[in-house]
Amino acid sequence: MIIDINCDMGESFGAYRIGEDEKIIPYISSANIACGYHAGDPLVMDRTVQLAKEHGVAVGAHPGFPDLLGYGRRMLETFPGEIRRYVLYQVGALAAFCRVNQVKLQHVKPHGALYNLAARDENTAREIIEAVMAYDPELILVALSGSRLAEMAGSAGLKVAREVFPDRAYLADGRLAPRRLPGSVIQEVEQVRERVVRLITRGTLISIEGQEIELKAETLCLHGDTPGAWLLAKTIGEALSEAGIPIQPLSQNLFP
Amino acid sequence: MIIDINCDMGESFGAYRIGEDEKIIPYISSANIACGYHAGDPLVMDRTVQLAKEHGVAVGAHPGFPDLLGYGRRMLETFPGEIRRYVLYQVGALAAFCRVNQVKLQHVKPHGALYNLAARDENTAREIIEAVMAYDPELILVALSGSRLAEMAGSAGLKVAREVFPDRAYLADGRLAPRRLPGSVIQEVEQVRERVVRLITRGTLISIEGQEIELKAETLCLHGDTPGAWLLAKTIGEALSEAGIPIQPLSQNLFP
Amino acid sequence: MIIDINCDMGESFGAYRIGEDEKIIPYISSANIACGYHAGDPLVMDRTVQLAKEHGVAVGAHPGFPDLLGYGRRMLETFPGEIRRYVLYQVGALAAFCRVNQVKLQHVKPHGALYNLAARDENTAREIIEAVMAYDPELILVALSGSRLAEMAGSAGLKVAREVFPDRAYLADGRLAPRRLPGSVIQEVEQVRERVVRLITRGTLISIEGQEIELKAETLCLHGDTPGAWLLAKTIGEALSEAGIPIQPLSQNLFP
Amino acid sequence: MIIDINCDMGESFGAYRIGEDEKIIPYISSANIACGYHAGDPLVMDRTVQLAKEHGVAVGAHPGFPDLLGYGRRMLETFPGEIRRYVLYQVGALAAFCRVNQVKLQHVKPHGALYNLAARDENTAREIIEAVMAYDPELILVALSGSRLAEMAGSAGLKVAREVFPDRAYLADGRLAPRRLPGSVIQEVEQVRERVVRLITRGTLISIEGQEIELKAETLCLHGDTPGAWLLAKTIGEALSEAGIPIQPLSQNLFP
Repeated sequence: MIIDINCDMGESFGAYRIGEDEKIIPYISSANIACGYHAGDPLVMDRTVQLAKEHGVAVGAHPGFPDLLGYGRRMLETFPGEIRRYVLYQVGALAAFCRVNQVKLQHVKPHGALYNLAARDENTAREIIEAVMAYDPELILVALSGSRLAEMAGSAGLKVAREVFPDRAYLADGRLAPRRLPGSVIQEVEQVRERVVRLITRGTLISIEGQEIELKAETLCLHGDTPGAWLLAKTIGEALSEAGIPIQPLSQNLFP
Repeated sequence: MIIDINCDMGESFGAYRIGEDEKIIPYISSANIACGYHAGDPLVMDRTVQLAKEHGVAVGAHPGFPDLLGYGRRMLETFPGEIRRYVLYQVGALAAFCRVNQVKLQHVKPHGALYNLAARDENTAREIIEAVMAYDPELILVALSGSRLAEMAGSAGLKVAREVFPDRAYLADGRLAPRRLPGSVIQEVEQVRERVVRLITRGTLISIEGQEIELKAETLCLHGDTPGAWLLAKTIGEALSEAGIPIQPLSQNLFP
Repeated sequence: MIIDINCDMGESFGAYRIGEDEKIIPYISSANIACGYHAGDPLVMDRTVQLAKEHGVAVGAHPGFPDLLGYGRRMLETFPGEIRRYVLYQVGALAAFCRVNQVKLQHVKPHGALYNLAARDENTAREIIEAVMAYDPELILVALSGSRLAEMAGSAGLKVAREVFPDRAYLADGRLAPRRLPGSVIQEVEQVRERVVRLITRGTLISIEGQEIELKAETLCLHGDTPGAWLLAKTIGEALSEAGIPIQPLSQNLFP
Repeated sequence: MIIDINCDMGESFGAYRIGEDEKIIPYISSANIACGYHAGDPLVMDRTVQLAKEHGVAVGAHPGFPDLLGYGRRMLETFPGEIRRYVLYQVGALAAFCRVNQVKLQHVKPHGALYNLAARDENTAREIIEAVMAYDPELILVALSGSRLAEMAGSAGLKVAREVFPDRAYLADGRLAPRRLPGSVIQEVEQVRERVVRLITRGTLISIEGQEIELKAETLCLHGDTPGAWLLAKTIGEALSEAGIPIQPLSQNLFP
C-alpha cells in the first residue's frame, strides 16, 4: 500500500509570484506544472521542472483553459476538437522542459474549470483522453475519484490515478461538496490528518452528512496556493509515516 | 545538387486568417509552422501539420517573440535565458502535433524579429542554438546565409540550412538590402526566376549595386503572406524543374 | 419613420485583417467598434473612428469577452461584477479615440457571446446596464429586439435601440432561429430586401414557420465579416431609399 | 513649498497579487494606476480608484507597453504612432473608472521601459505628449526630472511634474545611476530621509560620486512592489512633517 501526494506548481507568471513551491516540494511526490495557458511561463516551467528533479518529485503537465485573467478557473465554451488541441499544445510545451532536463513526464492532470468540467462532461473527458492517448499512452491521467473522466479513461485503457482532496468535504454520493457549503473546506489540520489515515487504511471518508463513504485514491491533492499549505503537507507526511504508508510518485504504483 | 523551398505557414489565429497555405503548399518542400507566440494557435498548428503531411512537405517549428499584436516583427528586449526557454516552449508545443500526426519534426527556423536579431547578435544566436541542441541535436537549424547564427550553429555542430530570399535584393557584402531601399523587394517574377537559377547553378547573385556575389543556399524562402505568393512558388518550381534541380526537404540534404 | 443600419467594424488586430470596413461604411449609419478584448487594437480603433467620422457614421463601443482566440464568440463564465468592469474598460478605451477625433460616442452594443448571454441572462443584462448608466446615461444601448436586455434597459431608463437581423430567420416566438437550423441564414439578397421593407413599413417579419410576427426595430444589423456584405448593404439601402425611409444614426431617433 | 508623493498601484492581475497598496496608500498623495497592458485588470483598476478616493489620494493613469509577461519593463520596438495610441487606449480605460467613481483623473505617468525610453528618446516623448495633449491638455504629465520628456512636455505647454526617486542614487550629470552600479539603490531608511529633506529644502542631492547636484522635484516616487515600501513611505512622511513640508497631490501645485 503506497500513496502519492500531488500539488499544483509553477503557477507564477513573469513578475507575478504565486504559491510556495520551494517550501512544499519536500513533502510531495508528484508536481502538476502549469503550462502557460492559465498560469506559468517558459522560465517558470523550466525552473519548476528542475526543482522537482532536485527533490526527486515526479513531473506532470497541468493544462488549463487559455484564460490567464481567470487563472483557468472559469468555464470557457469550446468547440469540438479545441480541448484536445489545447491539451496537446500544453503537454508538448512542458515535455520540452522535461526533455532538456532529462526528466520523465509522468502524468497529466487538467486544471481548474477544465478539471471540473471533465469530471462530469463526457465530451470534455473524451477529448482529454484522446489527447493523452495520442501523445503517449503510457502517461498517467490524474482525475477526480469517482468522476466520469476517471471512469472513461480507465475504460479507454489509460492508467488513471484517482485523486482525493483531503482538506475538502465530500457529499454522501461521493462528489466534492461545493465550496459555498459551510464546512466544505476543512481547515483544522488534525482533522485532515485523521481523514488521510482513514482514507488510506480503510478506503473511506466521513461525508459532510456524517456517513462513511468509500473513495478510491491513488493520489492526494494539496493546494499549493493556500498560505501555510506546506504545513498541512508536513502534517500529512508525518501521519502517513507513522502509519507506515510510503509516499511515492504515481509511476511507482501498479496500474491494472 | 538539390534545393529546399521553405515557406512560413500556419500563421492564422482563431477567426483571423492569414496566408494562402493550401495554394502554396504544392510548390514547397519544407513548412515553417508558427507555434502560438507571434501567430498560430493549437487548431491551426494541428491542421497545418496535417496539410504538410498530406503534401509530403517536411515540418519545422517557427518560434517567435511572444508578441501577437506585433506579429513577432518587433524587437523585444529579453533577459538572459528567456530566448532559450521561449524557443523550447514553442518547439515542444509544435512537436506534440508532429507526434500525434506521426510526422517527424525536421527543422527550426526563428521568425521575424527573432530571426533578424539572431543573424547579428551572438547572445541571441547562442540561446537559440542551445535550445535546439538540448532539445534534439539532429534538428536542422534554418538561418540566414552568411549570418552569425549560421556560422555559430555550424561551429557548434548543428546541421545548418543556409537560407536565401530569391525575391529580396542583397548588398555587395552579402547582407539583405533593407526594405526601405528602392529595389529591395524584387517583384518581377521573371527576374526572380533568373536569380534562382543563377543561385543554384553558380552559387551567386547580382547584388543591388550590380556586383556578382557568392551566397550559399540549402533552402530558398518564399513569403506566404504576400498575395500571389503561390504563383511565384510555381514559377520557381518550373524554373528549377527545367534546370533539372530537384526540390526536396532539407532532411534529404547531406549535411557536413 | 427612420431606420438605422449598424455594422460591427474595427475587428482587425495587428497584422490580421478581417472585414471590409471601407467598402461597407458608405451604406451604414452606425458603426460598432471593437475595443481590444475580442478584436481590435488601438491603431485599428483610432483608424476606424476616423473612417466613421469621414463618412458621417455614428460611433458605438462594441465590448466583448476577453477572448481574442475565440473572437468573443464563446461563453465565458464570469464572477459577479466582472462584466460591468469589462464593459467600462472597453467603453472608456474607445471613448478616448472618440475624444481625440472629436466624435461623439453614440451607443454601446455588446458583442458575440456577451450579446447572446445578455439577451437571456438577467445578471449579465443588469451589469451591462449598470456600466452604461454609470458611464453616461445618455448613451444608447443596442440590444436584440425582444430580449431581456432590451426590456430591462428600457425599464431602467436607458435609451434602447432594438435590433433586428434582416438576413437571419426568426422563430414564431420572436427569437432568432439557431444557426444550425436549415434556412436560419437568408442568403438571397432579394428576399432580404423584402424582409427589410416589410419590417420597416409593417413592423413584421415572416417567421421560419411561415407566420407573420411583430418585431420592433430601431436598427438593422449587417454582418461585416461576411464576404460581399457591402453588396447586401447596398441593396438594403436602395430598398429603403425607394420606400422613402431615411437611414439615419440612432441619435437622430426620438427615444421615449 | 509642497511636495507630492506618488506610487505605482493597481498592478495585480487576476489571481496574481503584487504590491501592498492598502498599506502604502495612507502615506502618499498620488497613485499611478496600471491600465491593463503591463499589469492591472478592470477589477483591480476599479478597486484601486476607489481605494485612492477613500484616502483622498489623487489618481493618475500609468500606461505601459503591452507586455504582461515582461511587466512592461522590457523595451519593445514600436512603429510610428503606436505609442500614442497605446497611451490613449490605456488613459481612456482608466478614465472610465474615474468617471463612474466620480474621481478626477489628475495625471499620466508612463511605466517602466516606456518611462525610461521617453526620458531619452524624442519620438517616444513626442507621442506621449501628443496623446496627453489631445486627450486632455489639463492633465499633468509626470516625468523623470531632467529628462527629455520633462523638457519637451514643458515646451509643449503641458503641466509637468518632475519626479525624483529618493531611494535611487544619481550620477553627477543628473541621470539615475544604473541599477547594476553598487550603491545605486539606497536601502538605509535614515539615508533616504536625509536625501528627501535636502532635496525639498535645498533642491539638491549628493550624487553617487559625492558631488552636490541640483534636481527639481514636484513629486517623489516610492516603489510599491518593494516589500516594506510602506515603512519607507511612513519615514519620508514623518521627515517631511517635521520639516513642515505638506504632502499634497500634484493638482494642488502651481504649474507655470
